[in-house]
Amino acid sequence: MSAADPVRGTCPTPLTEAEKVLLGHGSGGQLSTELLREVVVPALGAAATETVPEDAAVVDVAGVDLVISTDAFVVSPLFFPGGDIGVLAVHGTVNDLAMMGAEPLAMAVAYIIEEGFPVTDLRRVTASIGAAAAAAEVRIVTGDTKVVGRGAADGLFVTTTGIGRRLPGVRVSAAFARPGDVVLLSGPIGAHGTTILSTREALGFEAEIASDTRPLHWLVAKMVADASYGIHTMRDPTRGGVASALNEIATASGVGIEIDETAVPVPAPVAAACELLGLDPLHVANEGCLVAMVAPESAEALLATMRSTPEGRRAVRLGEVVSEHPGRVIMNTLMGGKRVVDMLVGEQLPRIC
Amino acid sequence: MSAADPVRGTCPTPLTEAEKVLLGHGSGGQLSTELLREVVVPALGAAATETVPEDAAVVDVAGVDLVISTDAFVVSPLFFPGGDIGVLAVHGTVNDLAMMGAEPLAMAVAYIIEEGFPVTDLRRVTASIGAAAAAAEVRIVTGDTKVVGRGAADGLFVTTTGIGRRLPGVRVSAAFARPGDVVLLSGPIGAHGTTILSTREALGFEAEIASDTRPLHWLVAKMVADASYGIHTMRDPTRGGVASALNEIATASGVGIEIDETAVPVPAPVAAACELLGLDPLHVANEGCLVAMVAPESAEALLATMRSTPEGRRAVRLGEVVSEHPGRVIMNTLMGGKRVVDMLVGEQLPRIC
Repeated sequence: MSAADPVRGTCPTPLTEAEKVLLGHGSGGQLSTELLREVVVPALGAAATETVPEDAAVVDVAGVDLVISTDAFVVSPLFFPGGDIGVLAVHGTVNDLAMMGAEPLAMAVAYIIEEGFPVTDLRRVTASIGAAAAAAEVRIVTGDTKVVGRGAADGLFVTTTGIGRRLPGVRVSAAFARPGDVVLLSGPIGAHGTTILSTREALGFEAEIASDTRPLHWLVAKMVADASYGIHTMRDPTRGGVASALNEIATASGVGIEIDETAVPVPAPVAAACELLGLDPLHVANEGCLVAMVAPESAEALLATMRSTPEGRRAVRLGEVVSEHPGRVIMNTLMGGKRVVDMLVGEQLPRIC
Repeated sequence: MSAADPVRGTCPTPLTEAEKVLLGHGSGGQLSTELLREVVVPALGAAATETVPEDAAVVDVAGVDLVISTDAFVVSPLFFPGGDIGVLAVHGTVNDLAMMGAEPLAMAVAYIIEEGFPVTDLRRVTASIGAAAAAAEVRIVTGDTKVVGRGAADGLFVTTTGIGRRLPGVRVSAAFARPGDVVLLSGPIGAHGTTILSTREALGFEAEIASDTRPLHWLVAKMVADASYGIHTMRDPTRGGVASALNEIATASGVGIEIDETAVPVPAPVAAACELLGLDPLHVANEGCLVAMVAPESAEALLATMRSTPEGRRAVRLGEVVSEHPGRVIMNTLMGGKRVVDMLVGEQLPRIC
C-alpha cells in the first residue's frame, strides 16, 4: 500500500518488508490494528475467522455458544499496587469473556520463565492466579511451563486463555453500536496505567493510586439479566484506553461517538499523574471498568443496575452514539468546544499489561 | 522437604525459598514435574483441577466433553529443517488435543514479540500458522499480540491454546494403562530434537534430518474408530522424549513398563547425531509420533490401522505394560540385559519447542 492510501491515512510506519516490529505495535492502538490488518490476518489466510476486532471469539459447539479469549501478559514490574501479573492475567481473561456476554468456565495458564527467576516470586504469582481464579469462580484446568535462558525473557510472561459460555439472550459485538445508543462507563479511568508507570519509574504517585484490576463478569451478568436485548456493545478499555476502545467500536459499527468531557471520571491523583507525565487519561490502560453501548430506552435502568454493584457504583453516562462522523469519536469539551478523540497511535506506556 | 524424603529421592535441586528457576524446570522431565508438584499446584490451591499430568484437560460444558490444551513455544532457532515455530505451535496443540482423543475445533494464538523483530519473519511465521491450521482443518479464532523492548524477549514466543471435542467412546488417561497392555509407537523417534540442536549449533546433521512435526489427530481418529474401547493411554513424547512420557504413564497408572531395545525405531542419522552429542534418543523430543497403551486383544488391529496411515506407516510394537516394578520403565537391551529407562532429569536440549 502506498502512503497515499486513504485507508492507511497518515500512518507513520508503513509495514514494508524492511520494517521491524515496534513497541507501538503492541500498544493496543492504531499500530496494533495495522499490524493485525496488514500482517497477521492476511498471513493467516483461510484459517482465520476474525473479521471484527473483538476481545474474544464465539464458537458454536453442539449448539452451545462457547466464547474463547487469549491474552499474553508482559507487565513490568510484575508486582504493583493493587495487584500483580497473576491477578491481572486472570481478570484480563475473565473480562474479555465477559465483554462478549459470557460467564467464564475454565482457564489455561502458560508460563514463559527466564532462567534464574526466583522460585518465591513464581510461587507468589501462582498463588495470586489461584486466589483470583477462585474468587472469580473460574477453574484453572491446564497449563504449560517453559524456561528460556538468562536474557532471553524478562523474568516471567503469563499467557492465559479462557473458555466461557455465552449467557442466554446476549448478542453483543463491537459492530453492533447504533445511532441513538447511550454510552455508559462503569467507573473511573486511568488508575491501572498510571500506577504501573509510577511504580516503574518510582514517581511517587504509587502511594496514592492502585491498579483498578477486578473481574467484571458479575457486573455483566447483572446487566444482562436486567436488559440483555438492550446491550449492543461492551468493551473493557485496557491497552490504548477508553479512546482506543471507542474508536474501535466507532469504526467496527460505522457510527460516530460523542462523549462529554465533564462526564469522564478521572480520579484526582490520576489526573495529577497524567498532567505531570503528559498523558491523556483517555489513552491510559484500565483493568477494571467497561464501556457499553446500550439502547436509549434501557440506559437508565442499566445505569441503575450498574450503580447497584460494587464494580459499577461510580458508573456514568459518558455520551452517545450518533450517525454523524462515522468512525470518529468527538469530545464535547469543558470549554464548550469539540475535539477529536484519536486512537492511541504509537506506544504510550509499554508493558502495561 | 528434606533430601531424605523418599518421594523426592535424589533430586539435585530442592525448591527452597532461596532457589532460582533452572533451565531444567522447563525440560518436560523430572525437574518440570517437581516444579509443578511442589510450586505450581500447591500455590494454585483450590482453583486447580489437574491431578494426573495430562497434555490437556477435559471440561464438561452442557453435556459436551470439551478438551482444552495450552502450550508456550520458545523454540530456537525459529526456522529449522522440517518446520518453524508456527508449524510447531499448531501441531503441538492439535496433538495435545488428539492425545485426549479429541478432534480439534478452534485455536487461539498469542504472540510475545521483541521490539525490532523483522516484520518479514512475523509474516512468515504467521503464514505457517495459517497454513498448518488450514491443513489440519482447525480454525484460528482469536489471538493477542504483545511487544516487549529489545532484550526483554528473544525474537518471538508463540502460545497456542486449542479447544477440541472428545470423540465418542474415548476414555483415555495417563492413569489408565493396565498390566498386559501392549505399548505401540507410531513411528521413528529423535528427529525433532536432533534437528533443532544440529541447526542451532550448525553441526551438519541438519542436511540429513528434519523435524518430524506433523498433526496426529487423523491417526488418532482412525485408531478411535477402529477400537476406542481398547485404547487406554495416548501420549505424544515431546519434551523429555519417549523415556519421560513412559515414566509419567508408569507413575500415573501405578504400573511397570517394559520395552525392547530392538523395537525402538531410531533413524540412522538421528542415531549418529545422538552418539556424537552423547544423547539418549529416548530422551530426545519428538513432534510427530505417539505412544499408546492398548488392550492386548486390540493391539494387532490397532497396529494394522496405524500402519495404514501416512503418519503411522512405520508404527511398531514397543513393549508391554507389566504389574512388576510399578512406576519404572525397563528396557530389554540388545545384549539380553535389562536397564532402567529414567525420566530426563535436568535439561538436555533447552528451547526445543
